[in-house]
Amino acid sequence: MSVYLVGAGPGDPELITVRGARLLEAADVVVHDRLAAPLLSLANRGAELIDVGKAPGSAPVQQDEINAILVEYGRRHGCVVRLKGGDPFVFARGAEEAEALASAGVPFEIVPGVSSALAAPAAAGIPLTARGSAQSFTVLTGHEDPLTVPAHRWRAIAGLGGTVVILMGAARIGDIAARLIEAGLSTETPVAAIYAATTSEQRVSISSLGEIGQSRHLPPVTFVIGDVVLRRAPRPVRQVSFQSAAGHGTDDEERLGARHHGLGEQRVG
Amino acid sequence: MSVYLVGAGPGDPELITVRGARLLEAADVVVHDRLAAPLLSLANRGAELIDVGKAPGSAPVQQDEINAILVEYGRRHGCVVRLKGGDPFVFARGAEEAEALASAGVPFEIVPGVSSALAAPAAAGIPLTARGSAQSFTVLTGHEDPLTVPAHRWRAIAGLGGTVVILMGAARIGDIAARLIEAGLSTETPVAAIYAATTSEQRVSISSLGEIGQSRHLPPVTFVIGDVVLRRAPRPVRQVSFQSAAGHGTDDEERLGARHHGLGEQRVG
Repeated sequence: MSVYLVGAGPGDPELITVRGARLLEAADVVVHDRLAAPLLSLANRGAELIDVGKAPGSAPVQQDEINAILVEYGRRHGCVVRLKGGDPFVFARGAEEAEALASAGVPFEIVPGVSSALAAPAAAGIPLTARGSAQSFTVLTGHEDPLTVPAHRWRAIAGLGGTVVILMGAARIGDIAARLIEAGLSTETPVAAIYAATTSEQRVSISSLGEIGQSRHLPPVTFVIGDVVLRRAPRPVRQVSFQSAAGHGTDDEERLGARHHGLGEQRVG
Repeated sequence: MSVYLVGAGPGDPELITVRGARLLEAADVVVHDRLAAPLLSLANRGAELIDVGKAPGSAPVQQDEINAILVEYGRRHGCVVRLKGGDPFVFARGAEEAEALASAGVPFEIVPGVSSALAAPAAAGIPLTARGSAQSFTVLTGHEDPLTVPAHRWRAIAGLGGTVVILMGAARIGDIAARLIEAGLSTETPVAAIYAATTSEQRVSISSLGEIGQSRHLPPVTFVIGDVVLRRAPRPVRQVSFQSAAGHGTDDEERLGARHHGLGEQRVG
């Protein structure tokens, strides 16, 4: 018996790890979040699927209950996959699940995944670090109310001189931007908003810290703040996949169209 | 024709993405770093392999030369994979390669990978973020001389209150620790040094910011600094893989033995 805490990656089913995909094929039970649902096509057809994700408008499954499900199923089955969007140890309460399993004596393993913090900028053609633009990057969650975060922490973030990535910040990006400006960042600091990164719904919009709070943003969105946004590859268009390009189509720069082809095929000439 | 800038992941060949593995299978040419070499077993047997990695003691291939190779091969071949350890856009000069390809009009795509910044702590059982311990994480490179980084940036890092991850810091961790202590972090701040994360050579050692500079560290090593180190799962031992456990063996806590099983099988009772 084992529980595998598996990162599903950013959305594109091909961006799960080989090990994650193999575990899904071998799974007796898959306990999944809403964002990880597109990956369920990779699961063993006989696997029991348990949705513990928060659907908009419905009551969320409490973390204690998820922990109890993992312990219970972990004791009864050979291969339980806990499938979480992105990486299980990045703002995903993987630590709490690991601790619950450890306390209960249920064997488990962490299988890391490609976090949206990395994949979303890549899909938009934006390097997280680049010589001359950023020597570090910091990843924050928008789940924390920016008004309760002490001012000195915002000053620290503003003083880093590196790239800042905000996950789960759709509802609070305006407040976050205001705090970062108060803390010393220029209103002109470039910001990329990457919606539904690496999926066929991906959209990228570029603005500035001064402007970003004026638009409405829907989850899932990743914000990238810093000069690296200016290193974005020019006019990325969709890439014809070596597998299949069917069904993906538009040249609109803001609608990348498909997969993780942000930089994609360059328009030549 | 296309050049794919593919993240090889942290070391374990099963931690490449499904898409990365498929591209390697389809590759006509693979241009790889030294750390990505273990992944070459996944490459098409007919593929031309070009090693542009820095071997210790030999002259490195210059970045300009790598860019020129990618442009040249990208023009001549259908599928060129540029295989880089970790993620291509995290301290990997992927931005420069993307810019060179864009300027030359060669189509390309970024395929993100699992960065050691995420996978090494996971393999050691350490969450990057955890309620009550850290609400953010910052990733830095040790390639930058810490003595030339302005003091205000160290104060910013120290003031964040989040997890700090140092990649490529083997040679300079002592200087980095000294700057962080000067900047206000306690000498007692816990530090994990994770050597060769996710491979059969993985070792984890736990110390503190005051002590870390007193030991010698060899690359590749990932340092994790912050209270999350205390959230490490107790006594992780190697995990029997659902595929094969052969050849991985020891119960020594500091020698995790195999793969990405840091948290691994809990010793029960």
